[in-house]
Amino acid sequence: MDHSNPEIALAGGKPGDKVTIIVHSYAMDKLYSALIIGTGALAMGMDVAFYFTFWGLKALQKNGLAKAPLSAMHLLGLGKWMMQRMMRKSKVATLERLMADYLELGGRVIACDMTMQIMGIKKEQLRQDWVTDYGAVGTYLNEARHSTVNLII
Amino acid sequence: MDHSNPEIALAGGKPGDKVTIIVHSYAMDKLYSALIIGTGALAMGMDVAFYFTFWGLKALQKNGLAKAPLSAMHLLGLGKWMMQRMMRKSKVATLERLMADYLELGGRVIACDMTMQIMGIKKEQLRQDWVTDYGAVGTYLNEARHSTVNLII
Amino acid sequence: MDHSNPEIALAGGKPGDKVTIIVHSYAMDKLYSALIIGTGALAMGMDVAFYFTFWGLKALQKNGLAKAPLSAMHLLGLGKWMMQRMMRKSKVATLERLMADYLELGGRVIACDMTMQIMGIKKEQLRQDWVTDYGAVGTYLNEARHSTVNLII
Repeated sequence: MDHSNPEIALAGGKPGDKVTIIVHSYAMDKLYSALIIGTGALAMGMDVAFYFTFWGLKALQKNGLAKAPLSAMHLLGLGKWMMQRMMRKSKVATLERLMADYLELGGRVIACDMTMQIMGIKKEQLRQDWVTDYGAVGTYLNEARHSTVNLII
Repeated sequence: MDHSNPEIALAGGKPGDKVTIIVHSYAMDKLYSALIIGTGALAMGMDVAFYFTFWGLKALQKNGLAKAPLSAMHLLGLGKWMMQRMMRKSKVATLERLMADYLELGGRVIACDMTMQIMGIKKEQLRQDWVTDYGAVGTYLNEARHSTVNLII
Repeated sequence: MDHSNPEIALAGGKPGDKVTIIVHSYAMDKLYSALIIGTGALAMGMDVAFYFTFWGLKALQKNGLAKAPLSAMHLLGLGKWMMQRMMRKSKVATLERLMADYLELGGRVIACDMTMQIMGIKKEQLRQDWVTDYGAVGTYLNEARHSTVNLII
């Protein structure tokens, strides 16, 4: 199966070797999970689509990836600064680097039209080099129904 | 495949064109994601089941959909009042309207028996017109194992 | 299909009757959802893998299950103490008891190597009797691509 061609995956009409992730949250650690899974899946020959909606759209704004807060910092006492230090020490790439790799490997980034309106976010506020498509719920479902791995973060 | 008949989808014994969503959180934006995906999938001819558990059960109480807070309001400075104003402007239906559409299109709403006990919520506290079934983990797994799109919000 | 043997499930090269859950959060109620689904699925003859990453790794530390906070306590006024009382009354097992059952039924617990480094958590800090494997994103994807039910909590 040629995973680089979504038409072929779609033609089968059943779940293929594909990952679709809804990015609903705006949190550094959750964006890491999405981008590590996404680049990993692409490297293993799978097809991958991300669908950004609600708070997740913040990540696609200029500096959105760099400025994302942790999802649970107060609760557990491990701050963002400390986690970034540990990441540099472990040679983990930044979110911006992972996004560049993800796109270069053929990953798609769909921004949700309807929630952009609700969140008051305009197209020109999003990093155009990060967004590959705009879509709505039908776009999402056409990706998801042909994916084996569906996640929402 | 006749998606309106879950028996047929189940008979195949493998994932069908079906969406199952666990609603674990009680947050306006997450309930929107679930209901927009749910009504969209039904409109596209898919079968859909929601399984409400833990905080999600709050949404099924009287006024539960109307009163749901945002999942991230403090963090990002966009309040619920502002988001609702943007929604009216964009002609996005209310959660109550979406739930009515969802049920009319054949969507199922399963309330988790066991977590109702844990949360101290009685059947008479739930909107009877919103709940189509009560169930436990086995009920959930029988929906999920026959679904292509499984999510927990 | 022999679900106790992951090699057989993998051999088919398509989604089997399997559940894979990423445990990203550290919250009592979310750990309950994961462990109830996990033990339920094993009891129904399905194969199950948990992949612990980021805050979820806290749950695998000594007393990590017992000390997990609620995900939404302030918001809704139902405290952990009250919820635990209701659980005892409803004869719901503790998280530690559920984890023991899960492992005895053949459930696997994979701890994410890379995020352990980032979180500053060493192997000796994890309950060795709870961890069945260590892995990275490739390990996760090999579980997930052969699962029907994929969730991240």
